[in-house]
Amino acid sequence: MQDRTLPFARAEYLTRTAAVKRRMEAAGIDVLLVSDPCNMNYLTGYDATSYYVHQMVALARDAAEPLWIGRAMDVACARFTTFLKPENLYGYPESYIGVPDRHAMAYVAAVVKEQGWDRGRIAVEMDAHFFTARCYQELVHELPDAEFVDAKLLVNWVRIVKSSQEVTYMRQAGAIAEKAMHIAIDAIAVGVRQCDVAAAIYAATISGTAAFGGDMPEAPWMPAGARTAAPHLTWTDERYQPGEATNIELSGCRHRYTAALARTVVLGSPPPKMAALVPVVVEGMDAALDRARAGVTCHEVEAAWREVAARAGIEKSSRIGYSIGIGYPGPSWNERTASLQPGDQTELAPNMTFHLILGIWMDDWGFELSETLRVTKGKLQRCFRMCRGRCL
Amino acid sequence: MQDRTLPFARAEYLTRTAAVKRRMEAAGIDVLLVSDPCNMNYLTGYDATSYYVHQMVALARDAAEPLWIGRAMDVACARFTTFLKPENLYGYPESYIGVPDRHAMAYVAAVVKEQGWDRGRIAVEMDAHFFTARCYQELVHELPDAEFVDAKLLVNWVRIVKSSQEVTYMRQAGAIAEKAMHIAIDAIAVGVRQCDVAAAIYAATISGTAAFGGDMPEAPWMPAGARTAAPHLTWTDERYQPGEATNIELSGCRHRYTAALARTVVLGSPPPKMAALVPVVVEGMDAALDRARAGVTCHEVEAAWREVAARAGIEKSSRIGYSIGIGYPGPSWNERTASLQPGDQTELAPNMTFHLILGIWMDDWGFELSETLRVTKGKLQRCFRMCRGRCL
Repeated sequence: MQDRTLPFARAEYLTRTAAVKRRMEAAGIDVLLVSDPCNMNYLTGYDATSYYVHQMVALARDAAEPLWIGRAMDVACARFTTFLKPENLYGYPESYIGVPDRHAMAYVAAVVKEQGWDRGRIAVEMDAHFFTARCYQELVHELPDAEFVDAKLLVNWVRIVKSSQEVTYMRQAGAIAEKAMHIAIDAIAVGVRQCDVAAAIYAATISGTAAFGGDMPEAPWMPAGARTAAPHLTWTDERYQPGEATNIELSGCRHRYTAALARTVVLGSPPPKMAALVPVVVEGMDAALDRARAGVTCHEVEAAWREVAARAGIEKSSRIGYSIGIGYPGPSWNERTASLQPGDQTELAPNMTFHLILGIWMDDWGFELSETLRVTKGKLQRCFRMCRGRCL
Repeated sequence: MQDRTLPFARAEYLTRTAAVKRRMEAAGIDVLLVSDPCNMNYLTGYDATSYYVHQMVALARDAAEPLWIGRAMDVACARFTTFLKPENLYGYPESYIGVPDRHAMAYVAAVVKEQGWDRGRIAVEMDAHFFTARCYQELVHELPDAEFVDAKLLVNWVRIVKSSQEVTYMRQAGAIAEKAMHIAIDAIAVGVRQCDVAAAIYAATISGTAAFGGDMPEAPWMPAGARTAAPHLTWTDERYQPGEATNIELSGCRHRYTAALARTVVLGSPPPKMAALVPVVVEGMDAALDRARAGVTCHEVEAAWREVAARAGIEKSSRIGYSIGIGYPGPSWNERTASLQPGDQTELAPNMTFHLILGIWMDDWGFELSETLRVTKGKLQRCFRMCRGRCL
């Protein structure tokens, strides 16, 4: 009964934990404590925006299934969204909330002890967004017999290749992103407030399509005018001006799987400097997309863009993409593993998904073009691809 | 010129840093490194959703103004949104991004050294959402001559009392939240998809009013049916069923200042258990609101609710509210300082703002009622107050 409401079959979650356990074994890790909300979602299905309080998924190599450990009131969230048995859900009492002298990690440590895991090698995600310095101190203090190691991106690396069901959700996310982008382009007009376009984008991404709804997206970035020089600004309540450009980087989200899409919209004719840049970026995008396929490295995909850009005298110091998948606002849709950048020797494999984004940010203007793509053995299958004639 | 686009006058930012410096002096802190995006926004104005990469605001007691330190491409975001001089913005190069062996905190440490601050007492926010265990390790390693201490909630405690301009934004946020709640209540109907109501809520909160737009909100919580037993679930694409209840906890956001509002909507007549609970919660809300005024403690406000609840045999273990203000998705709108809960002896003072939320979560149903309020010396002035007859 419960399985029916989850986005994946129980077997798929177990396949994931098995893959993680293999990596744990190779690294000599007995117990893995996962803080990254995306990784928690991946391993158990947990899907609640409760990560402003401390919570974890604990996976032991010798345990059949993971444990979820969080705030007592959120056990109910776990009951509705994870595949776990009720006895695998641990809630710490409210006496840990809003007080300076008690910390949720003391409770996590108690669970670890109760399971008899406190003399093993415990891996924590040392650089995961919500694993704070104090979390680590508390765990180390409470579990003096354990040896702590950095799990690094162990779970993230398992996430990099998508299953067929994950690809389905990525495609749906792509369809939502494409729809939202069309609506955004139609909505931007001289005299319209930026916030009203943002409202239209959100409405489109969340309503999704008639066949499936959208989930909570990241905030779209959509700076306009001179602010297009900055990549990560949202909107204001200013009205669009004649001739103004807007860089829209938005996403569609389906069961937390995220496809991102960026376009630049100009109200009028693009200024000469942008008009000169656009064909280079389009050619560079095509070159990178054409090179991206299984067996090619991230470095090589970036080099395809770099060659085109260099011929035009354009330098871009930032990476042109990264592995994309499960996303939560805050932690972002970026999986933090492979990057399309010089020196990244990760080999592309079938069913990896990337956000390939050519963002050019100058002193007082900018331009963005992106695609979310799925790697295949042969010619690239893009998750979605818009008609560029309309969008540039 | 730049000031004109910021939500606060330069003088107000300087008042804030002065208040923080006084607390630093009292605690013997020479340099404060701030990671919490809300605190970064408070001290400098920085307003970009770039906190998925490491970034900081550094405030030294003997420096006139703070430094912003982040990713090079986000220096542009700081240029548009902070009151800081260009020479106070430090960007680390892309070579720190997407690689396992270099960490942004090494760059932060280099800036600290360059300023000659590396032999002092440096405070870091040990339990702030984005200050990871590895951030701390890197800083300690790179700055061996510094003494590190926990800043705890030093900046958060300064934020607890709002200025008159902040109150203005809180009121605007309240107006947005109220409008959005009316739209949500009107939109929920048998056969409508939950995601379409979520879309309507987002559109309303972001369009704001004709006079001012809304900013990126937190995702609304809006579980329906049995899921109302869980506090922190968003929506699905299921259609509303006859008789179903929905707990809506949403927010309005204006220049990042957030007012939250929760209501329960029932499609039909509430079931007897809910019908019996509602008058108790309403009476408890009134009792808590009537007690809340300057000079009263958080403990006492909660006790007012608790007395009403106890008479009706209702037990609620979780707090009934917390200080609210600047919010970013992920880190949340909760300021993490004062909580309306037993034992919290924080005294209410004028222009503190609280989200007072009576959330009752049972095994397979729940009920929520909340207000965002501003503390005054005399009778409470609520930021906003909806007609409860319509919403319950």
